[in-house]
Amino acid sequence: MRILLIGAGGTLGTATHKAFTARGHEVVGVGRTGGDLVADVTDPQQVARLYAEAGPLDAVVVAAGDAVFRPLSELTGDDFAATLRGKVLSQVELVRQGARHLPPTGSFTLISGILTEQPIVGGAAASTANGAVEAFVRAAAIELPPQRINGVSPTVVEESLPTYGPFFAGMEAVPASRAATAYVRSVEGAQTGQVYRVH
Amino acid sequence: MRILLIGAGGTLGTATHKAFTARGHEVVGVGRTGGDLVADVTDPQQVARLYAEAGPLDAVVVAAGDAVFRPLSELTGDDFAATLRGKVLSQVELVRQGARHLPPTGSFTLISGILTEQPIVGGAAASTANGAVEAFVRAAAIELPPQRINGVSPTVVEESLPTYGPFFAGMEAVPASRAATAYVRSVEGAQTGQVYRVH
Repeated sequence: MRILLIGAGGTLGTATHKAFTARGHEVVGVGRTGGDLVADVTDPQQVARLYAEAGPLDAVVVAAGDAVFRPLSELTGDDFAATLRGKVLSQVELVRQGARHLPPTGSFTLISGILTEQPIVGGAAASTANGAVEAFVRAAAIELPPQRINGVSPTVVEESLPTYGPFFAGMEAVPASRAATAYVRSVEGAQTGQVYRVH
Repeated sequence: MRILLIGAGGTLGTATHKAFTARGHEVVGVGRTGGDLVADVTDPQQVARLYAEAGPLDAVVVAAGDAVFRPLSELTGDDFAATLRGKVLSQVELVRQGARHLPPTGSFTLISGILTEQPIVGGAAASTANGAVEAFVRAAAIELPPQRINGVSPTVVEESLPTYGPFFAGMEAVPASRAATAYVRSVEGAQTGQVYRVH
């Protein structure tokens, strides 16, 4: 399959790229500053350009999303708005526009995260965004068929512990390769409306 | 208790107002065009003014939220953004600012809805918003104590069937008074981080 991978240069994106390539798929990697194609998917016009440049695709996979981490008492309204733009509206836009671009057999795999159900101090904006993404996946799944849509909800990955470890004290990390496996399951499987938890 | 009720003039708000008043509480009703106080809570500055005008409060309760209903293929990016502003960022702002205004014993009760888990055609934006609200409730609940926060997730209420009935074909409606009971449970109870489902 020909797979558009958003966030290809990130920790999770790198592992996901490797997993898909190892299974014989062609990956078109997208990053904000580098990759096969360059786009900031929080800008709907750049999403349109991205699809125009990408050519035929069988799957769209998102392995990155922006969220502001800060104690609730310090999170501003703008922090919440930026997090919803960075992780929710961006992914919704990829699906909205992508639904017209992908064939009937196409699929979307979005990213949420463990904070949907298991909050951490400083993660209220990220939790809010993750909950939105998962509910969107379930809702879009009844209107997109025959196209499919699923989510992957990773916990913190081992490779990110130097940066995010302090936020996830006492929570088990998983190798990014395990989260990558969930993306393979979503893309190669037949299910829709699922959120694959990698916790 | 002295309770600020957002959306007091709506179907659910009217039932909730009645339930609280019947239990001896003082309700300060807020509406966009009428009520004891007038405010559009999607505007953070109006939220600030609202709290300044409201005086001492024991609880903040939200019984209304705006969402755009339209088939996914017709929902625009702006529809999603407007729905997140109308039902998510507005409630987050009421909590953000309210946390400084309410006493340690204060509580917040937000509104989500059945579409978090049970989508309907045309409800993708509403589902997205509801999922965000519920995840925010769980996340804020670990940072707000001793203040509390819960959510109420109603299905469609019988009194709204003339308007929303066609969207909820075959789904059981509940009387608004049942949803109002969940608000009483949240405000008078001791739990936090709960989503009370009235389905």
